[in-house]
Amino acid sequence: MFIDLRSDTVTQPTKAMRDAMAKAPVGDDVYGDDPTVNQLEKLACEILGKEAAMFVPSGTFGNQVAIMTHTQRGNEILVGEDCHILIHEVGAAAVLSGVQTRTFPVNADGVDLDRLKGMIRGNDIHYPDTGLICMENAQSSGMVIPLKNMQDVYSLAQSKNIPVHIDGARIFNAAIALGVTAREIAAQGDSVNVCLSKGLCAPVGSLLLGTKSFISHARKNRKLMGGGLRQAGILAAAGIIALNEMVTRLEEDHHNAQYLANRLEEIDACHVYQDRLDINMVFFTLAESRITEETLVTYLLDKNIKISGQEDGAYRFVTNHGVTAADIDFVVDSIKTLISSLY
Amino acid sequence: MFIDLRSDTVTQPTKAMRDAMAKAPVGDDVYGDDPTVNQLEKLACEILGKEAAMFVPSGTFGNQVAIMTHTQRGNEILVGEDCHILIHEVGAAAVLSGVQTRTFPVNADGVDLDRLKGMIRGNDIHYPDTGLICMENAQSSGMVIPLKNMQDVYSLAQSKNIPVHIDGARIFNAAIALGVTAREIAAQGDSVNVCLSKGLCAPVGSLLLGTKSFISHARKNRKLMGGGLRQAGILAAAGIIALNEMVTRLEEDHHNAQYLANRLEEIDACHVYQDRLDINMVFFTLAESRITEETLVTYLLDKNIKISGQEDGAYRFVTNHGVTAADIDFVVDSIKTLISSLY
Amino acid sequence: MFIDLRSDTVTQPTKAMRDAMAKAPVGDDVYGDDPTVNQLEKLACEILGKEAAMFVPSGTFGNQVAIMTHTQRGNEILVGEDCHILIHEVGAAAVLSGVQTRTFPVNADGVDLDRLKGMIRGNDIHYPDTGLICMENAQSSGMVIPLKNMQDVYSLAQSKNIPVHIDGARIFNAAIALGVTAREIAAQGDSVNVCLSKGLCAPVGSLLLGTKSFISHARKNRKLMGGGLRQAGILAAAGIIALNEMVTRLEEDHHNAQYLANRLEEIDACHVYQDRLDINMVFFTLAESRITEETLVTYLLDKNIKISGQEDGAYRFVTNHGVTAADIDFVVDSIKTLISSLY
Amino acid sequence: MFIDLRSDTVTQPTKAMRDAMAKAPVGDDVYGDDPTVNQLEKLACEILGKEAAMFVPSGTFGNQVAIMTHTQRGNEILVGEDCHILIHEVGAAAVLSGVQTRTFPVNADGVDLDRLKGMIRGNDIHYPDTGLICMENAQSSGMVIPLKNMQDVYSLAQSKNIPVHIDGARIFNAAIALGVTAREIAAQGDSVNVCLSKGLCAPVGSLLLGTKSFISHARKNRKLMGGGLRQAGILAAAGIIALNEMVTRLEEDHHNAQYLANRLEEIDACHVYQDRLDINMVFFTLAESRITEETLVTYLLDKNIKISGQEDGAYRFVTNHGVTAADIDFVVDSIKTLISSLY
Repeated sequence: MFIDLRSDTVTQPTKAMRDAMAKAPVGDDVYGDDPTVNQLEKLACEILGKEAAMFVPSGTFGNQVAIMTHTQRGNEILVGEDCHILIHEVGAAAVLSGVQTRTFPVNADGVDLDRLKGMIRGNDIHYPDTGLICMENAQSSGMVIPLKNMQDVYSLAQSKNIPVHIDGARIFNAAIALGVTAREIAAQGDSVNVCLSKGLCAPVGSLLLGTKSFISHARKNRKLMGGGLRQAGILAAAGIIALNEMVTRLEEDHHNAQYLANRLEEIDACHVYQDRLDINMVFFTLAESRITEETLVTYLLDKNIKISGQEDGAYRFVTNHGVTAADIDFVVDSIKTLISSLY
Repeated sequence: MFIDLRSDTVTQPTKAMRDAMAKAPVGDDVYGDDPTVNQLEKLACEILGKEAAMFVPSGTFGNQVAIMTHTQRGNEILVGEDCHILIHEVGAAAVLSGVQTRTFPVNADGVDLDRLKGMIRGNDIHYPDTGLICMENAQSSGMVIPLKNMQDVYSLAQSKNIPVHIDGARIFNAAIALGVTAREIAAQGDSVNVCLSKGLCAPVGSLLLGTKSFISHARKNRKLMGGGLRQAGILAAAGIIALNEMVTRLEEDHHNAQYLANRLEEIDACHVYQDRLDINMVFFTLAESRITEETLVTYLLDKNIKISGQEDGAYRFVTNHGVTAADIDFVVDSIKTLISSLY
Repeated sequence: MFIDLRSDTVTQPTKAMRDAMAKAPVGDDVYGDDPTVNQLEKLACEILGKEAAMFVPSGTFGNQVAIMTHTQRGNEILVGEDCHILIHEVGAAAVLSGVQTRTFPVNADGVDLDRLKGMIRGNDIHYPDTGLICMENAQSSGMVIPLKNMQDVYSLAQSKNIPVHIDGARIFNAAIALGVTAREIAAQGDSVNVCLSKGLCAPVGSLLLGTKSFISHARKNRKLMGGGLRQAGILAAAGIIALNEMVTRLEEDHHNAQYLANRLEEIDACHVYQDRLDINMVFFTLAESRITEETLVTYLLDKNIKISGQEDGAYRFVTNHGVTAADIDFVVDSIKTLISSLY
Repeated sequence: MFIDLRSDTVTQPTKAMRDAMAKAPVGDDVYGDDPTVNQLEKLACEILGKEAAMFVPSGTFGNQVAIMTHTQRGNEILVGEDCHILIHEVGAAAVLSGVQTRTFPVNADGVDLDRLKGMIRGNDIHYPDTGLICMENAQSSGMVIPLKNMQDVYSLAQSKNIPVHIDGARIFNAAIALGVTAREIAAQGDSVNVCLSKGLCAPVGSLLLGTKSFISHARKNRKLMGGGLRQAGILAAAGIIALNEMVTRLEEDHHNAQYLANRLEEIDACHVYQDRLDINMVFFTLAESRITEETLVTYLLDKNIKISGQEDGAYRFVTNHGVTAADIDFVVDSIKTLISSLY
């Protein structure tokens, strides 16, 4: 077995999930006939306070089908400059929806309201219409946005009749970090995407939530994008457990991330980004020129530790269900050993 | 329980599939780490004689990611005039890939080679390039195309350096109807899409197959389209059983379709399209003005029989794993009773 | 000087046009400030009976901006199987507007109403919405569609709430051939595109016409497509003369086409498509294996005659303002000489 | 007559241009037969040092057809955060080319190389490929970028095998401001777009330049976008005069802009952005709450002065061929009178 710090997407389904999947009553969800999918969608609506929900194959799928459903061809969408939609979804919004992305800065205080306001388009023949504002909480940068800031963004958007989509792939992590409910976060947008397959350990799937009318349109776009699944209740069964039983355990990942950060700080060459340490991710640099990315990745893999290469010059270690405090000690000790071996 | 004739997509996973899903070793397939997905992809390559395979969430997804991977923005793709890609995929090729669809006629003899040849574009500033030819076998119209015709189409395409994609959603049905192997059919194109979730009873998923280079590019497009799944081995476990154990049983669906057709012919008002009776689908019209589509659907639903409404003036009944000969008798007798009740 | 039979797009602006262009008052049309463009657009509205008009750089531009304005991403548009939009516009509709093209047959009687009706999509999660029906009159195949047929198509479309666009690149040719006014033809659609630069001899430009609301939206799409011109009044000045003075002369081109057809029939090897001889185009085949396309094109070019290569196995000779009856005699005699020289 | 400060696009063709247009030999440019277009394209190549050129209907068209030709569907293009392509082209790049826009900051020193470098994508399944970097010089913000900075950007791009497109709508203004030749600027990219219809006074048209192979591909994309014009030599004739005779006069516009800025500074409430005063544009704010945008626009229009409303809180006055120093005095004096009238 590996200690896998590459992402929380690597988590394995639990025993309870496997049992549930084996027994789940299923039907053809394209016809709306899958009772387990229907149950999951209903549960998600209750937890997140939305009218309707739709099961989708992935977080990227959920975000992109939301963009396709909110916008018209040729709209401009405003997104955070480091957000998953812009950076990690293969440029999909332009391809699938024909919309132009334009970015606003986001920092620890959240979105700069004035900058965002200045980006909303007026009526001019040279301008695309602003068709959507996207927020992400928790952010894939490791930070969370204050609820108040989300409320301000949503108020601004509503005053301009612009819909807001929330990429809540890690909304439950954000809720823990902010000390609010996921429902309060979800209330700050017209639609929200929530992942079951990251820290919550379901094998596959996300949920897109919004009004009944929005989700009804989104179902057709899901079909267009090839995401109409058949007996998806198998996966939904795990999703139900994810929502019912796994949310509270995310706190443990956050504690472990703090612990990992503290232990990494013991290493002189390591610089941990403390301002991006809000959830289960630890970003850090390793100022040791003799340890290249390839060296570190290979060395740790030899010890059955999986990590990703650097992005923008920093390593990201992600704590998750499969990573214990003891694992963290082993990882940090291994890095220390590697550094010592250089002298 | 219902007798469900709407499609073979309604089939339930078997007991063996549920057991396999419950026990399947899994990993994060976006990282290529899922052993069960890898096993399924390898198995499919062996059966279908292709270099590489990729698990995708649906048949529509498989076709569309193939189109995106084969073509460039602005290409023209040639498709059969009744094919699934044109008729039943929500216009996706234009949205996702920016390609123009143009149709060739297909009849019981297959594709009209001369017509197809005349459609391939030459070099003219007014013309898009012909980027792809798509064949479908078995066709969603219920017919199969002779292998020889597929070979002729592929030879023509190769002589013009145009790739061929085969929508083989029901390739195993086609193989049975034609008395050839699925591998022989798959050999008539550069890529082929195969569904696990129709007559083969897997809950979710299809496979796209082609060269290593093609599948490598397709993996990135799969991510763009939101089809990068995580612990997809759960689903792949059922897919392995589908390929290993369920292919031979499709013959039974074909026999049942013949039986259903014969029994429907007993009804004077029923006209069965015998030329579209190659696989597990029975298309027929009901020339009884007092029985509207709504009447028939509602009446049968009352008797726990699910059917779809008409398409292009005809009903389609699809036999599948959940439909026995006794069920067929009950369905036909019910229709007879309804007709008698009118007099 | 050449005798140019390649197209009527090769026509040169007349002396009157050049004078008008030299003196035209102009302004920045992106701001709506060009008086000559405004005058042209007003004139076109009067002639064609529409509320509003917009000058565009080409016929392809006019058709494509119409498609972009009528449709939403993901719609299906129904077009004639030989129409310019499908065959000669480089696949633009899929690229620019993200719409799927699907074709209906058109013959000398016009559009097959039953086939068209069967293609209009109902409400089904697998179906794109039918967003537009396009008719073309005169057709680039050389035929015209009867007015009654256009009325029937438009009635059908209106009953289904589907807009109709008319590609009237040669609407004045059609009007002459049908013995109706261009206004009567234009009345059979919600929008119509009319070319100034073909038989009418203006150097550059077409007009898109429709309701005020439609043209208002189309102006923004024209800007998006890069067709917002500045002092376009220069071109519009020629367009005004085209509409006011050149329409009646098209009849001469039609007579010349008839004359050319008759003379070509004198040649045994020539087969003229009499059913495509409605306007200023003569389609014919040359059944003389020793005269390849290249031979004929080169031989005639040597004699200062320009023709295009074959399309779908036939030559198209187009009569126009620069082609006289004497020119036609010279062309046919030259072909005869070429054939004689073979013996 | 108006004093028109809205843009330099409002300039009228000169007497020499009108004469040239009246006499220009023309042909069908879609067939490459227009001698005047060919002459203009050849001239532009000589001046700007590129292999091939193509006449296009507008600056937006030139930029967008360049993007379409350089990129593949799904690429990411890097553009300046205030550039015309992002802000003033109606979101076209996403619609027409299916590419994702991502922005780098540009200031008086030019592009931040480190930031740009960090934005170039590596090889990761989550990433789109970086398909193009766009620079703009002069910028529509009124600033110019130092030549050295352009060289650095181009070197970086070349080292990563990424093409560079230069939006040189006002390249001759940039050349004057920088004291270099337009050719030196054009050398810093693989393609460059140059406008004839702004300060150079041609009525319509721009030129896209690049390698022969690039322009050859661009010609097909121009046709797809509806920009294949017929007897475009009419417009090209004015373009030849624009390039031959009008370039040197741009300096006068720059002087007038300086003069306008100085005179505006006489007004206490006016704040001129001195850092955006490199060419023929004066950006300023008017800190007088009683003079709304509407008040100022209406008041000046009454005096036959046309200005645009504010963008991002600032007014932009653009000097051009139709604006003299005396006109500037009249404009500033009018504003002064308006302000005085408030007291």
